[in-house]
Amino acid sequence: VRTVAIYGVGLIGGSFALALRKAGYDGRIVGVSSPLTIARALELGVIDEGAPPMEAASQADLVFVAQPIRVIIETIRRIAPHVGSNAVVTDVGSTKAAIVAAASEHLPAGVFVGGHPMAGKEERGVEAACAELFQGRVWAFTPVQAGDMARTEFRQFLQWVERVGALPVVLDASEHDRTAALTSHLPQLASTALAAMLQDAFPGGPPTLHGPGLADMTRLARSSFDIWADIFDTNRQNVSAALEAWMAILRDLHAALAKGRETDIRSIFARAELFAASMRTRRTESQDNLFT
Amino acid sequence: VRTVAIYGVGLIGGSFALALRKAGYDGRIVGVSSPLTIARALELGVIDEGAPPMEAASQADLVFVAQPIRVIIETIRRIAPHVGSNAVVTDVGSTKAAIVAAASEHLPAGVFVGGHPMAGKEERGVEAACAELFQGRVWAFTPVQAGDMARTEFRQFLQWVERVGALPVVLDASEHDRTAALTSHLPQLASTALAAMLQDAFPGGPPTLHGPGLADMTRLARSSFDIWADIFDTNRQNVSAALEAWMAILRDLHAALAKGRETDIRSIFARAELFAASMRTRRTESQDNLFT
Repeated sequence: VRTVAIYGVGLIGGSFALALRKAGYDGRIVGVSSPLTIARALELGVIDEGAPPMEAASQADLVFVAQPIRVIIETIRRIAPHVGSNAVVTDVGSTKAAIVAAASEHLPAGVFVGGHPMAGKEERGVEAACAELFQGRVWAFTPVQAGDMARTEFRQFLQWVERVGALPVVLDASEHDRTAALTSHLPQLASTALAAMLQDAFPGGPPTLHGPGLADMTRLARSSFDIWADIFDTNRQNVSAALEAWMAILRDLHAALAKGRETDIRSIFARAELFAASMRTRRTESQDNLFT
Repeated sequence: VRTVAIYGVGLIGGSFALALRKAGYDGRIVGVSSPLTIARALELGVIDEGAPPMEAASQADLVFVAQPIRVIIETIRRIAPHVGSNAVVTDVGSTKAAIVAAASEHLPAGVFVGGHPMAGKEERGVEAACAELFQGRVWAFTPVQAGDMARTEFRQFLQWVERVGALPVVLDASEHDRTAALTSHLPQLASTALAAMLQDAFPGGPPTLHGPGLADMTRLARSSFDIWADIFDTNRQNVSAALEAWMAILRDLHAALAKGRETDIRSIFARAELFAASMRTRRTESQDNLFT
């Protein structure tokens, strides 16, 4: 890899640039972003130069598209005629099926692999970029065809992913989206709905009297809808299905509470405890990964 | 206050004993608990002696009932004939209306004030007790009659509450329970229902692919139903109403998602962001309180 083009030099794109450098990458890093972001990214030493989209696409061995989902799809469509046949095109969108579909329509076979690094932080933008963002984090890859991952160019890219500290995982785009609906998009909706309901109940702000878990349960609700609009738009069916399955449990809980059917509630608590306990184990494991 | 009787020498009862000592209390601390707990509490230096329930009640200036809610109600009923008319009886139950009703039925007027320290940790039992548990924490008080708090004996007790670092707040028992349903009991159900649903979806444990907020959203789900059974049992109507109001927002979200009505979802996110942002401010404030 001699030239990397990063589309969208924000938190993720900027962090990947910094992480590559720290991992020993000594080729060129070209940024494609708004003039303001390019200026700031140059100032911060995150990229080597800025370039227009088509020019960057025609020069790059690795095209790294780190924009919002709908913009990723538009970028793929527009740069497709300019991408070299030995290049790797990848992205970081939070849903994968729509992006993989667009890529397989517009890009030559074998050039594209969808990506989703499970990394982030509260701040956004290139100012928040840091070389350690991917350290110990799972990075999901969704190839267009399962065999693609064996391609030499993909394997070189995967080596860089590992060098920046991430843990690559390969799965099908539709499986990714179904799982993410349950483990990421539904928790977001749960937190948002809870916080919205409490905002309605307490328009003057949170009451002094609240349990220790309320901060945990409303933290995700700080997320702006700007990020989530595209996610819901491109994963509507899975998110709807997850929400329905969850509301069925809430209705069970409500009926059991109303009728005082303690054994039914106890059974729901028991299943929940089991999952929550394995989440804790899992988190400990992934923290360990930070040091291996 | 020369003699404090602590009913239930667990995390809260034991911590109050340790906190009193650390704050300079030099009277007697009598524990009422199972023989095993009394032995351990003596070993750990948490209490000065153990005593049977009636004997402890007749000796104490301050009766501190730190048991599960249904046991608190039973203890109040049983010790009532033995409590001195100058004593203060208080409790730490997570719901207040049922306890205040039992106390006003059984105890002489002016003797009882309901209490709910907003403190806790994951571990339970006297082994987990620590003198700092109440530091910077809100401690809600729900008197039988508003005027009760002016009583000399209550004011002396309140001074100890402040000396152990807590921030006393006085409110009506029914207001307490309505608020707690929204800010504590509903978040618990939300976390439990989410974790139960994910346990059903992933019987083999959490998938590698999950958002950064899933640990936050399932942390409360570790709570055992043993603690929650009494809470739901004594706050059924408020918890049901809170759950219904919340499910109404979830149905709105579901309909808006299914129909792609982005402005409706955006409005729910905006209200949620507002609440979540004030939660953060509130938390910062209460952390500041730790140092004042």
